[in-house]
Amino acid sequence: MSMNSFGHLFRVTTWGESHGPALGATVDGCPPNIEVSEEMLQQWLDLRKPGQNKYTTQRREPDAVRILSGTFEGKTTGTPIQLMIENTDQRSKDYGDIVEKFRPGHADITYFQKYGIRDHRGGGRSSARETAARVAAGGIARAALKALVPNLEIKGYMVQMGPHAIDRSKFDWSQIDQNPFWTPDADTAASWADYLDGLRKAGSSVGAIVEVVARNAPAGLGAPVYAKLDTDLAAAMMSINAVKGVEIGEGMNAAALTGEENADEIRMGENGPEFTSNHAGGILGGISTGQDLVVRFAVKPTSSILTTRKTVTKTGDDTEIITKGRHDPCVGIRAVPVGEAMMACTLLDHILLHRGQIGSNQGQIG
Amino acid sequence: MSMNSFGHLFRVTTWGESHGPALGATVDGCPPNIEVSEEMLQQWLDLRKPGQNKYTTQRREPDAVRILSGTFEGKTTGTPIQLMIENTDQRSKDYGDIVEKFRPGHADITYFQKYGIRDHRGGGRSSARETAARVAAGGIARAALKALVPNLEIKGYMVQMGPHAIDRSKFDWSQIDQNPFWTPDADTAASWADYLDGLRKAGSSVGAIVEVVARNAPAGLGAPVYAKLDTDLAAAMMSINAVKGVEIGEGMNAAALTGEENADEIRMGENGPEFTSNHAGGILGGISTGQDLVVRFAVKPTSSILTTRKTVTKTGDDTEIITKGRHDPCVGIRAVPVGEAMMACTLLDHILLHRGQIGSNQGQIG
Amino acid sequence: MSMNSFGHLFRVTTWGESHGPALGATVDGCPPNIEVSEEMLQQWLDLRKPGQNKYTTQRREPDAVRILSGTFEGKTTGTPIQLMIENTDQRSKDYGDIVEKFRPGHADITYFQKYGIRDHRGGGRSSARETAARVAAGGIARAALKALVPNLEIKGYMVQMGPHAIDRSKFDWSQIDQNPFWTPDADTAASWADYLDGLRKAGSSVGAIVEVVARNAPAGLGAPVYAKLDTDLAAAMMSINAVKGVEIGEGMNAAALTGEENADEIRMGENGPEFTSNHAGGILGGISTGQDLVVRFAVKPTSSILTTRKTVTKTGDDTEIITKGRHDPCVGIRAVPVGEAMMACTLLDHILLHRGQIGSNQGQIG
Amino acid sequence: MSMNSFGHLFRVTTWGESHGPALGATVDGCPPNIEVSEEMLQQWLDLRKPGQNKYTTQRREPDAVRILSGTFEGKTTGTPIQLMIENTDQRSKDYGDIVEKFRPGHADITYFQKYGIRDHRGGGRSSARETAARVAAGGIARAALKALVPNLEIKGYMVQMGPHAIDRSKFDWSQIDQNPFWTPDADTAASWADYLDGLRKAGSSVGAIVEVVARNAPAGLGAPVYAKLDTDLAAAMMSINAVKGVEIGEGMNAAALTGEENADEIRMGENGPEFTSNHAGGILGGISTGQDLVVRFAVKPTSSILTTRKTVTKTGDDTEIITKGRHDPCVGIRAVPVGEAMMACTLLDHILLHRGQIGSNQGQIG
Repeated sequence: MSMNSFGHLFRVTTWGESHGPALGATVDGCPPNIEVSEEMLQQWLDLRKPGQNKYTTQRREPDAVRILSGTFEGKTTGTPIQLMIENTDQRSKDYGDIVEKFRPGHADITYFQKYGIRDHRGGGRSSARETAARVAAGGIARAALKALVPNLEIKGYMVQMGPHAIDRSKFDWSQIDQNPFWTPDADTAASWADYLDGLRKAGSSVGAIVEVVARNAPAGLGAPVYAKLDTDLAAAMMSINAVKGVEIGEGMNAAALTGEENADEIRMGENGPEFTSNHAGGILGGISTGQDLVVRFAVKPTSSILTTRKTVTKTGDDTEIITKGRHDPCVGIRAVPVGEAMMACTLLDHILLHRGQIGSNQGQIG
Repeated sequence: MSMNSFGHLFRVTTWGESHGPALGATVDGCPPNIEVSEEMLQQWLDLRKPGQNKYTTQRREPDAVRILSGTFEGKTTGTPIQLMIENTDQRSKDYGDIVEKFRPGHADITYFQKYGIRDHRGGGRSSARETAARVAAGGIARAALKALVPNLEIKGYMVQMGPHAIDRSKFDWSQIDQNPFWTPDADTAASWADYLDGLRKAGSSVGAIVEVVARNAPAGLGAPVYAKLDTDLAAAMMSINAVKGVEIGEGMNAAALTGEENADEIRMGENGPEFTSNHAGGILGGISTGQDLVVRFAVKPTSSILTTRKTVTKTGDDTEIITKGRHDPCVGIRAVPVGEAMMACTLLDHILLHRGQIGSNQGQIG
Repeated sequence: MSMNSFGHLFRVTTWGESHGPALGATVDGCPPNIEVSEEMLQQWLDLRKPGQNKYTTQRREPDAVRILSGTFEGKTTGTPIQLMIENTDQRSKDYGDIVEKFRPGHADITYFQKYGIRDHRGGGRSSARETAARVAAGGIARAALKALVPNLEIKGYMVQMGPHAIDRSKFDWSQIDQNPFWTPDADTAASWADYLDGLRKAGSSVGAIVEVVARNAPAGLGAPVYAKLDTDLAAAMMSINAVKGVEIGEGMNAAALTGEENADEIRMGENGPEFTSNHAGGILGGISTGQDLVVRFAVKPTSSILTTRKTVTKTGDDTEIITKGRHDPCVGIRAVPVGEAMMACTLLDHILLHRGQIGSNQGQIG
Repeated sequence: MSMNSFGHLFRVTTWGESHGPALGATVDGCPPNIEVSEEMLQQWLDLRKPGQNKYTTQRREPDAVRILSGTFEGKTTGTPIQLMIENTDQRSKDYGDIVEKFRPGHADITYFQKYGIRDHRGGGRSSARETAARVAAGGIARAALKALVPNLEIKGYMVQMGPHAIDRSKFDWSQIDQNPFWTPDADTAASWADYLDGLRKAGSSVGAIVEVVARNAPAGLGAPVYAKLDTDLAAAMMSINAVKGVEIGEGMNAAALTGEENADEIRMGENGPEFTSNHAGGILGGISTGQDLVVRFAVKPTSSILTTRKTVTKTGDDTEIITKGRHDPCVGIRAVPVGEAMMACTLLDHILLHRGQIGSNQGQIG
């Protein structure tokens, strides 16, 4: 019952703080004989690496991942895989105000209230740097998925920045990798660039909505009632820093629909039943239907802004604070590869679970 | 790693199908010496009981709960508490079309695809009847919470039915128990009544949004990183039948806010730090702040409607189906006490976890 | 993390006290489409039922098991199986001394020290009646094993009663079901009968050693390092009431052997590698070898004896106690089917785990 | 459900192979504000370090432990503690026969049968080097125990080497640290030295029995029914490499006793109830009594011996093997600090569990 682990059979434990010697992930339950390498993992880490462009924090870390265990001659052995990323940019700095003051909207105050420790160095365990370990672990999951479900495809992208949503009619899958926001709508990408530039210069920040889709996931994944696929995806996404909402398919909008509008009708296709729509986001009763799995999550704006804010000190005095230093005007951008990693880990986990619990008893229609 | 259990130290396993002899909950980890009785549990079950008024399904079940173990002379002993609710309305019926056809929007098809079994009797394990067991277990959690945090208050209510949201300016806590929709806005309750009547007569259905609030929960609850309080609440709510989205505080709307708008400022109050707003929904970094905990979830409309829908048969033929029989035009209504129960179980669980892992090391401000 | 559950994927939670309305087992993770019936389970329960002969307690319970959920038309559905056994012999009795005094060698005192509750009714949760639920759950496991590994055979038997061990040279598998002690040595069975008769008349009791063997279990079961097959078997057996020691293969005697004596040599057989001996008890490095799995456990004598013993009262006064009423001179006898049930549950669990985590990557020799 | 983790609230995951870059332990759930340092951990690691004297393997590793996360200014923060030990002696060697042949009595063959991978480098995950990570994690547990139960004392020692047991009448606690075998009987230590010297020269090996005692552990620890203190201790010890049997108190010998002999009588002492003997090993009904906790385990002889043995190759041919290189004539010696570490981790875990689940409801006698 580790509090820093997720997954049932494919189980990932992340560890490490933003300013300690290293952070990483202990990955247990990866099937044996899967090809993995540090290079394979590094490609995913490089995506979320800070300092890539002017829209993300200028903290520069190589974020080089090392595999310390669990492989032999380039393949997994079935034993725990330890992934370590050293913190190279952890020099002692002038933390200034942060040593004594709590930052509004940060986890400073709750960590202190819980643990009685004030580790003022940049967020400690609550820092977004923890997500680097998730991305590394997600790379292991992707390698295993590639072997088990070769045509499975996982893709994350931004669908809203601040109040500005993409135009779904311009959705173009091939555009996602062509802009710094991983968004499928090229026109919106252009307007977001200007918008974000303005926010950055003003020392402000804004939230975002990220959507993650998995294509070609098999039907039958999900273990009712409390390890439903949507339940586990909701937990996976909500556990990411700054996430405040999670939706499957229609999500919160399902409330506004009638039964006629919401239920996806079924027709027999060449390879089995097909649905004429996907309001369900690929999940019914907590079990995958074989359609695209569609998850969305909202990331709140970072509270590290250049505006003076009211707060209190450790000793209980009213004061004000302004958070100087490196800023990420829209942390949602870097959450995209993290969402993909959580999708990959969750799907692999449920594929293994299904294989263990159900075997070949699965029902065939037609 | 039971797939039908939730919670870490206060652990609830629900069991049973809608049409078997009984269903219930195995509740493990309740502290000893807590006063509980069947009457205490029954009051909560009666709230979600079907057939209460014309807005909920006319299936009539007494839903009488029995305590089979775990108590002695009216108090918990620290051993597992078995709660059983017999299914009295399980007579063999003419299931008609459902035996061979899958209902669009139902879990029929995914359960079959997963398990290779077609239990056509009213939904089996995916039926909303499973939530009766949650409400019973929630009653145990409430009893323990009453002993541990006497002034804690948990309240659920509807804030949207179909496209019609309440008017937040008319929010009146005392109205919640005064209308069949558990809504804090009396005017909206009246308009919903008409709206739902129309839907019911048309054999249609509609979704809803439920909000659950916990007042006076202590600061410091939540176990980062993968058992954050919001992570566990998101999983708890998403595991409820028909839920498609979960929000904490601002929820999906956090995406549209700037850092200045979103971060809650802090001032020193009489009993410690206080926040000047609650966009966070009472949770920062996965840990409770001591403010109101605010969770919302969207319930999709039931797909049991009187409109003909396209579907397929077990043998893979295209066909149509119309779902006759008892209908719940807005299943969201009955989800209110279920949401409260999940909040109660999750909070008790985290209070026990915190007590075990942290003890008296908690930090004091001021 | 239920404290009353065991198993990873095949997960059993037992509940209930000796003197409450009922006890039972919540069985989660049984594969679907397995044939089970109350009759199948009852045959195993009847084996451990008290009052069978003069060597076991005269408490008479029909121990009739009911399946409340998880099956449809005689087959498992993949959902939780609830097994309930009503306590019919729970009439309020004159508990006499036990209300205020702690019985030496009983869990009375530790349960009170832990939970602050003195449930004096016959042991409550620490009663051997809890093992009826294990036997019922074991019946489910056996049914699934029969489908998955048809030639698997599980057999428990007594190899020592008090200081009197069986003669291994007279070991006859076919004798096990022919005597009230489930022992493979007919001569010893006869001498034990006299020995136990004497103990019973004297109001005394004695310990025993039970051995459980599984034949034809596949190689490769066990999940190193902390869910090794021997680790899980040790936990399973040690969790049975009154067990004080567990051995695999040579067990404690392995200490006395040299490397030459202990290591089992290997030769190639028709169907793969074979071992020329089985000191290892069928497990190397926590993983099954394909040989017979051999587990032994020691059961201490019951402390319910007709001899006056020194003890203290709840209020802390020195006193004496004599435990009248029904006695089991050798509780080890009734532990035999319980040991078999724990073996069945553990093996099924590891077969499912292996299937989930390893799939078809298993190595073939030759 | 990590297969490489143990513990409920204090949860340790070990990772790493004998010949990879590093191995270690991810320690989750340590309470905050506990003083720990690499020096504190190193003292325990140095005890089990190989190459200490002629009785243990000559593999020389500094076994220097690094703390990579979870502490701030010398104290734990409540976040995961990553402990890493680099493998410095991992140079590529001539593995000779081992590449193609399976060593009798080793986990070579079962790891291959399970995972389909033949990592021939010195045992991989099944190597005794894995226990270094346990000892490091045990150091964290000891530090927390020191803060929570200051007078708790944990001590392991050898009580049997090969067929030669110590003389219990010469038991002298102060002798344990005075001889290379950690045995409390000085005379036996001397005779064991000669005995082991002979075995070493002959290239043979022998088993051992280790006893671990915890003094001053509080009453009330242990979570019935499947996380009993003795169940968890049995699992903890059986998970150590080469262990084949585990005993609590009288252990296997309990079988030979009568109820009169076995049950420990109770008298009122100054600070509560006291027992006049300790056949139970400090545990009744799975819960600690407050007496000394006494656990014993048998370690089999290593099968790395200089005698030719029959075996098979990967390709299924009969052959012979002789294991050259570094040998540990009695691996039981180095198991002593490992047993202590497992006791420390298990006790801390149950203290946290008890604190979480029971709080201050514990019963007081007198």
